Amino acid sequence: MKPIRLGMVGGGSGAFIGAIHRIAARMDGRFDLVAGALSSDPDRATTSAAELGIRSYSSFAAMAEAEPLREDGIEAVAIVTPNHMHAAPAVAFLNAGIHVICDKPLTATSQQAREIAKAAEASSARFFLTHNYSALPMVREARARVAEGSLGQVRLVQAEYLQGWLADNVRSKQADWRTDPAQAGAGALGDIGTHAWQLAEFVTGQTPSYVSADLSSMVPGRPIDDDARVALRYASGAKGGIWASQVAVGQENGLSLRVFGDEAALEWRLSDSERLIFSPKNGPAQILTRAHDRSASFRTPPGHPEGYLEGFANLYLDIASIIRGDLSAADRVPGLSAGLSGMAFITAAKSSSERDGAWTEVSP
Amino acid sequence: MKPIRLGMVGGGSGAFIGAIHRIAARMDGRFDLVAGALSSDPDRATTSAAELGIRSYSSFAAMAEAEPLREDGIEAVAIVTPNHMHAAPAVAFLNAGIHVICDKPLTATSQQAREIAKAAEASSARFFLTHNYSALPMVREARARVAEGSLGQVRLVQAEYLQGWLADNVRSKQADWRTDPAQAGAGALGDIGTHAWQLAEFVTGQTPSYVSADLSSMVPGRPIDDDARVALRYASGAKGGIWASQVAVGQENGLSLRVFGDEAALEWRLSDSERLIFSPKNGPAQILTRAHDRSASFRTPPGHPEGYLEGFANLYLDIASIIRGDLSAADRVPGLSAGLSGMAFITAAKSSSERDGAWTEVSP
Amino acid sequence: MKPIRLGMVGGGSGAFIGAIHRIAARMDGRFDLVAGALSSDPDRATTSAAELGIRSYSSFAAMAEAEPLREDGIEAVAIVTPNHMHAAPAVAFLNAGIHVICDKPLTATSQQAREIAKAAEASSARFFLTHNYSALPMVREARARVAEGSLGQVRLVQAEYLQGWLADNVRSKQADWRTDPAQAGAGALGDIGTHAWQLAEFVTGQTPSYVSADLSSMVPGRPIDDDARVALRYASGAKGGIWASQVAVGQENGLSLRVFGDEAALEWRLSDSERLIFSPKNGPAQILTRAHDRSASFRTPPGHPEGYLEGFANLYLDIASIIRGDLSAADRVPGLSAGLSGMAFITAAKSSSERDGAWTEVSP
Amino acid sequence: MKPIRLGMVGGGSGAFIGAIHRIAARMDGRFDLVAGALSSDPDRATTSAAELGIRSYSSFAAMAEAEPLREDGIEAVAIVTPNHMHAAPAVAFLNAGIHVICDKPLTATSQQAREIAKAAEASSARFFLTHNYSALPMVREARARVAEGSLGQVRLVQAEYLQGWLADNVRSKQADWRTDPAQAGAGALGDIGTHAWQLAEFVTGQTPSYVSADLSSMVPGRPIDDDARVALRYASGAKGGIWASQVAVGQENGLSLRVFGDEAALEWRLSDSERLIFSPKNGPAQILTRAHDRSASFRTPPGHPEGYLEGFANLYLDIASIIRGDLSAADRVPGLSAGLSGMAFITAAKSSSERDGAWTEVSP
Repeated sequence: MKPIRLGMVGGGSGAFIGAIHRIAARMDGRFDLVAGALSSDPDRATTSAAELGIRSYSSFAAMAEAEPLREDGIEAVAIVTPNHMHAAPAVAFLNAGIHVICDKPLTATSQQAREIAKAAEASSARFFLTHNYSALPMVREARARVAEGSLGQVRLVQAEYLQGWLADNVRSKQADWRTDPAQAGAGALGDIGTHAWQLAEFVTGQTPSYVSADLSSMVPGRPIDDDARVALRYASGAKGGIWASQVAVGQENGLSLRVFGDEAALEWRLSDSERLIFSPKNGPAQILTRAHDRSASFRTPPGHPEGYLEGFANLYLDIASIIRGDLSAADRVPGLSAGLSGMAFITAAKSSSERDGAWTEVSP
Repeated sequence: MKPIRLGMVGGGSGAFIGAIHRIAARMDGRFDLVAGALSSDPDRATTSAAELGIRSYSSFAAMAEAEPLREDGIEAVAIVTPNHMHAAPAVAFLNAGIHVICDKPLTATSQQAREIAKAAEASSARFFLTHNYSALPMVREARARVAEGSLGQVRLVQAEYLQGWLADNVRSKQADWRTDPAQAGAGALGDIGTHAWQLAEFVTGQTPSYVSADLSSMVPGRPIDDDARVALRYASGAKGGIWASQVAVGQENGLSLRVFGDEAALEWRLSDSERLIFSPKNGPAQILTRAHDRSASFRTPPGHPEGYLEGFANLYLDIASIIRGDLSAADRVPGLSAGLSGMAFITAAKSSSERDGAWTEVSP
Repeated sequence: MKPIRLGMVGGGSGAFIGAIHRIAARMDGRFDLVAGALSSDPDRATTSAAELGIRSYSSFAAMAEAEPLREDGIEAVAIVTPNHMHAAPAVAFLNAGIHVICDKPLTATSQQAREIAKAAEASSARFFLTHNYSALPMVREARARVAEGSLGQVRLVQAEYLQGWLADNVRSKQADWRTDPAQAGAGALGDIGTHAWQLAEFVTGQTPSYVSADLSSMVPGRPIDDDARVALRYASGAKGGIWASQVAVGQENGLSLRVFGDEAALEWRLSDSERLIFSPKNGPAQILTRAHDRSASFRTPPGHPEGYLEGFANLYLDIASIIRGDLSAADRVPGLSAGLSGMAFITAAKSSSERDGAWTEVSP
Repeated sequence: MKPIRLGMVGGGSGAFIGAIHRIAARMDGRFDLVAGALSSDPDRATTSAAELGIRSYSSFAAMAEAEPLREDGIEAVAIVTPNHMHAAPAVAFLNAGIHVICDKPLTATSQQAREIAKAAEASSARFFLTHNYSALPMVREARARVAEGSLGQVRLVQAEYLQGWLADNVRSKQADWRTDPAQAGAGALGDIGTHAWQLAEFVTGQTPSYVSADLSSMVPGRPIDDDARVALRYASGAKGGIWASQVAVGQENGLSLRVFGDEAALEWRLSDSERLIFSPKNGPAQILTRAHDRSASFRTPPGHPEGYLEGFANLYLDIASIIRGDLSAADRVPGLSAGLSGMAFITAAKSSSERDGAWTEVSP
């Protein structure tokens, strides 16, 4: 199969998530990065593109206009800008019939999300959202266990994403836009809370109906939430919680998920990402590894750890197959509906928190 | 030092917590169990006392009347009955000038709690509440770390107590009274939620000011909560959560505490009770063991696991010292104020849950 | 059942293992400590006995002579002296028809071991050896798994006991006799290597036929081994290893056992003593807890950690039953044959090490 | 920097380690795979090359002859054939002035090893050996700790590599050549024992002087070792052990290293590869993560797990730098001396085992 010609918006030198997307796209040899509007700073855009040996554009708009006219134009584009800069390029490329691979969360505002949704509906191209953690093998196996009924009726769901890097009033390229309401839209809630939300949604197959939230800015003077504690109610009667924090000192990327059904339970932690604990009601807990992952989402034998980059690459691998017409993995790759769900979560949680935790409907 | 003559109310054959109290009292040789009103069933009371070789009474009232008249009468009494049967004997023995060692939670109702408080105030005898987990060495060390300021300002507190044994509608001596509102007062909230509450309070030295609770009965037909999710707000601006569940399949006694300050964090789990993870903001996490517990609350060298019974025995050891006049450990042994705090937690959480999670003041 | 009247040799104030034995004997209420020859220093013997409120003897010989003449004389004696002082009192009490509960290893020399064996053979009394770790519930379950064939044919056995407390040339009551060849007989090999040896023997039900050993004194000037690395060959064709070290910095009591059969494997660690990992050849590893221990060797529900003292108390409980005539637990309580096996291990390992690791037959 | 043109010998469709090398070479964009002699089966060679879109050769010899004549010829070649097929292509490419990246162990026989050594000496090209585990960040940090003296004098070293996949007499492409003495040279000893050996050597900076080995074929009829237990003696007085097994049921890739010095200890396990436990003699153990890896051998923030493929890619990244003239990483990339050390280990261990474990000098 021929590699897919890929463009990139954002991700100039010094960027974090752009470099991750490039490794993920490269890992399995299914993409060729050929063009980019890598920075809003024209010099940095040019230099960064030269370093990568790809065509350079001064703006995403120019790229969206020019590429469709080339015989060797890009077939897909990765958008790796800050949240408030997702919608405009996404709409432009969708309108140009170019597949979009967008970093999460979907956008900084609900209005922007609606614009993408509208463009996606009208476009022949596809929209993918890189919620990478749900592409890890043991998370996919967790989802399969719930789907096949091994847990029985789900009763309790707890998802956490704890970081400590913003415990102080740090200033850095990464910290600055993430703590700016205009660029990020939401703080811990949007940056990592949406990962926890999507993880829970992906594994359980259920979206909470109501949330009650308590958002805090623990660091004095911070204009955005850095700790989000959200209680969940499901239509099924299940209850749950999301806890996202960026001031949890000592935590690097403490993402975890626990799901309790009336027949069995599952527990997974990113810090031990290759093991999934499955606890049937009667009988001992089992340590599932990739030897038991039926999605076969890996490249190396069990016991040889794979991780974050491989999870990202799993997404790119599936996206390549979908773009090339094999839809068998379509239902496990997050897309627009995951993005809209995440935005609905942010909106409802903010609204609830503003009203002192009043239970608030989640309206995707 | 002469052993303290101990009586017991409840704890007849087949009882769970009574046997635990007896082992704890026996372990360090500081108590002699000499009398008991071990059961409300007279035959069982007599037989059980005979098995233990102690004086038998048909009722706590008879014991409270007779023992003070004996030269070799009991100096302290352990009350190990269901929650609704704590207040009456506690009041009787306090009135008789006999020290009371009462199992938790304090009572089944606030009214009963007030009665104990009143009797305690009027009595020369002391009142102890066996929140045993806070007597474990690494928990005591955790408390010392917070108290000495190693964590800086506490920002986040999360305490959980997860069990799975009531995931079905089980019937048993232990299950029956714990799921009966009249005998227990509260379900998961009272039985194990109060442990989590006290653990958080003991370690942080702070009592939350407001709670927002969502209590559930996950097992159809159960007349009492079996899952309690409670958000916490502290006067200091700290936020927190208590999660207590008896339907968390696969969990045996999943008690844990996480405290994040602005300088360092602590994590402790009962399943790994001899290790305390201390994470300073700058620098690697440290695995503290009993080698670093400055309270010296143990009998064996570090690495030789001690556990639940030793924690209980630590309480009995401290109680013996206090009764014999050495008050140096008085501030670390839970007593009436811990009991009243737990009742205030139950009351506030129930009230909040009835009003759909409205933030509710905790009024001890 | 009436408590058994117990005497003690050694264990005066300041002693370590004597206090442990007393707690273990007391925990389940099956023993009454009534007499002791607690120290070779007469003053310390008297004072220590007074503190415990028991009859005091100036020597074990005096106690062995006097007690059988009393109507309320001791029925059993615990010997908790240094290794070289086990044989003489053991022989004396066995000759007096009094049951002996002896700390491990059996003796300091093979000659002393033979003397005990001879006395035991001639006596109506029983001889017990307190290899306490093998009385922990998950170890007993491990043994049951091997015995019932769940592992298939055992192929590989690895037992380790790593401590770090003698990494320097420390001087203390505990360190002094343990590093004195005359009192201890062997260093790491005897003090903790015999625990590892017995653990492996207890769980697998097999005794190695040949050993090849490399004993070291890592601390300059130490006259006894502080690190012992021993390879094992079993008659069945299985291979194994014992590694005992007292200079393993950072290790508190790092006892562990791994057994690999051709059908399944078992792994147990004292640092996580309440979990046993059972790995069938096909299918995920299982985390066994006390909920799956069929020996029911515990007092509290699974998830409430029990540990070192409870293991010791399990032995005392079984010993009480055996002394009172219930022999159902007799095969799981270590006795003379375990002691002789340990001495054979020490002898063979020393001999092998002296001959540069030559494979040496183990002759119990 | 321009990517390095890479060729490959072996690694046709269905091969395991060839695919790994390709991902590792691709991950950081520093190599372009352009040519290959991918299989000794001409059809498979052609098809596999077409799938990858690279130049195909029917033999390594043809490739070694033709490529140097092309202006766009390969600059380096990866050799990923079975062990007995390493030497001939390595010699051919070294003679042709092309850098060689060879999988481990070096060869199947000592004679073959000497041939490579001779060719390497005469060549202007470099020779690299892909002992990938030692390129993981926490292993590099472990090495730095030993080198800077944090452990003091190293006393004890224990390295293990346990697998269970050959517990039965399995037949497969991977199993067949690994259990064939002619192709593999050694079994568990060579395939994974050399990894453990190299890991210990890399971290401690010391090579054992003498070994005493016990090699076993646990599976009936297997003509090669599947379990290797090797005791080590260092010139410094340190002692150690290597345990490599392919019949350790339940173990996936159980690689671990423990090093005890007289000041501190280190423990690392592949199953938890992102954490390194550092235990100073005085003070609590520390959990080091990539936040504390001073080699910066990673692409993602700490807490986002990297693993096996990233370790392999770390090697390829360093190799690319070295080939392009930056030698700063040269001392941490395994090369010929690591390969010869591994062969000396195999030779000495086999010789020792044949002589019933006689201590045997390691002569690289």
